[in-house]
Amino acid sequence: MTIDGHSHVTLPVREHIEAMDAAGIDMTVLFSTTFHPEKSANFAEVKESMGFLSDLLAGKKGSMVEARQKSVSELVGAIAQYPDRYIGFGAVPVGLDLDGTLQYVNDVICQNHLAGMGEFTFGSGQVHLLKNIFCASQEFNHLPIWVHAFSPLTYQDIKDIAKLAKSYPETPVILGHLGGTNWLETIALVKEIPNLYLDTSAFFSTFVLGAVINEVPEKCFFGVDRPFGDLQLCKDAVLRYAKTLDVSNAVLGGNLAKLLRIAG
Amino acid sequence: MTIDGHSHVTLPVREHIEAMDAAGIDMTVLFSTTFHPEKSANFAEVKESMGFLSDLLAGKKGSMVEARQKSVSELVGAIAQYPDRYIGFGAVPVGLDLDGTLQYVNDVICQNHLAGMGEFTFGSGQVHLLKNIFCASQEFNHLPIWVHAFSPLTYQDIKDIAKLAKSYPETPVILGHLGGTNWLETIALVKEIPNLYLDTSAFFSTFVLGAVINEVPEKCFFGVDRPFGDLQLCKDAVLRYAKTLDVSNAVLGGNLAKLLRIAG
Repeated sequence: MTIDGHSHVTLPVREHIEAMDAAGIDMTVLFSTTFHPEKSANFAEVKESMGFLSDLLAGKKGSMVEARQKSVSELVGAIAQYPDRYIGFGAVPVGLDLDGTLQYVNDVICQNHLAGMGEFTFGSGQVHLLKNIFCASQEFNHLPIWVHAFSPLTYQDIKDIAKLAKSYPETPVILGHLGGTNWLETIALVKEIPNLYLDTSAFFSTFVLGAVINEVPEKCFFGVDRPFGDLQLCKDAVLRYAKTLDVSNAVLGGNLAKLLRIAG
Repeated sequence: MTIDGHSHVTLPVREHIEAMDAAGIDMTVLFSTTFHPEKSANFAEVKESMGFLSDLLAGKKGSMVEARQKSVSELVGAIAQYPDRYIGFGAVPVGLDLDGTLQYVNDVICQNHLAGMGEFTFGSGQVHLLKNIFCASQEFNHLPIWVHAFSPLTYQDIKDIAKLAKSYPETPVILGHLGGTNWLETIALVKEIPNLYLDTSAFFSTFVLGAVINEVPEKCFFGVDRPFGDLQLCKDAVLRYAKTLDVSNAVLGGNLAKLLRIAG
């Protein structure tokens, strides 16, 4: 079974399902989104979308409680349309107090039967904001936590996330985008910490992708990050650079099916 | 004609030519290299190679005059084997005085009939080291200058390079890797400065790649950055995201054929 472990809701949803069919992707772990760059009609709109993303990744957008709730509704709607093709991870605002976080996770994640929390984006130096999220994971059956770990996050931020993962050994923690330019240091952390995983989306070098998936095949989840990545090209890259069929099978779906208990 | 505008010498050279044949790439602008990550037999060797690269990109390796001269010999040897498939860009050390730089460019670049200078890698805040390189370009028929512009370079560094390009309007300046995570700001500079160009290698998002090549198609050169990139996947990405045949033709070879006066 081929599972795209990380893509966002893109509109219209039907087109995503068609793209999955065309690329031979059986299921997608679908993430909510507060903006839709794929709807940009021209470069000015792309620019506007990417400016928004840039502020979001830098943690400048704050908790965005309302926007995130709305985005989860959109996510839940998409999953309801295609329950056999989607599993959802829902955004949770950081910066709420512990009670507020637990209430939110209960109401928005658990009540909607979502399988995990994320994508978390915050500025460099703000990993401490995840503390209540880890507490909520512990409270709610060890919900996996998915963190954007490309730029603007630094190696220090990734080490801080790894430290939290170590303190909560039953919470699966997925570092997005291979740790970005810090992939070499990140792989050492992933080797050391059993509950720390890597998502392959946004790789900028197939040499790097190949080095990582063949070194820690059991810790990597294939991801596309649609609308930013391309389903077919991302899948082709894993198939082309995995040294064995065992590696590509594990990365392209086996690992995630096991973690999220998805029956093949 | 399809031209890979940026790949390094990889060994054995014959395998590169075979990969070009398989991917339908007619010519490659070949760059010298001081290390060969493609020869890594295991992850420990990959790690060693990438540690070297990391220091190189941070400007920690200094001028490396001897290593760069040796790498140019290897480059010239590869071109001599396949003169119909390769055009060379040669490394020039930064940090030499003006006379030393002019002498080096004359002896190593011009005498070997290389078509440009690069890839330049230096630490953030060190763009001033390129001053003598621009003087040499002016002296030697406006040799193009190719600069690594991904991490660890910042937007400020890219602005500093753009300023130099503006001061030397007859020197083509190619910013490698779309400007990395600073691609959105970089595209504005490329629009403003006629002699400033973009290389597409190391893109981390096909959404970004598509936005850039369709917005400034006449300013983009397709690049693979072998051994770090994959010829077929990089070409597929441009073909898939170019909105028209004119765009893909320009990016995949037309623009570079014009700049380097390569006959089709």
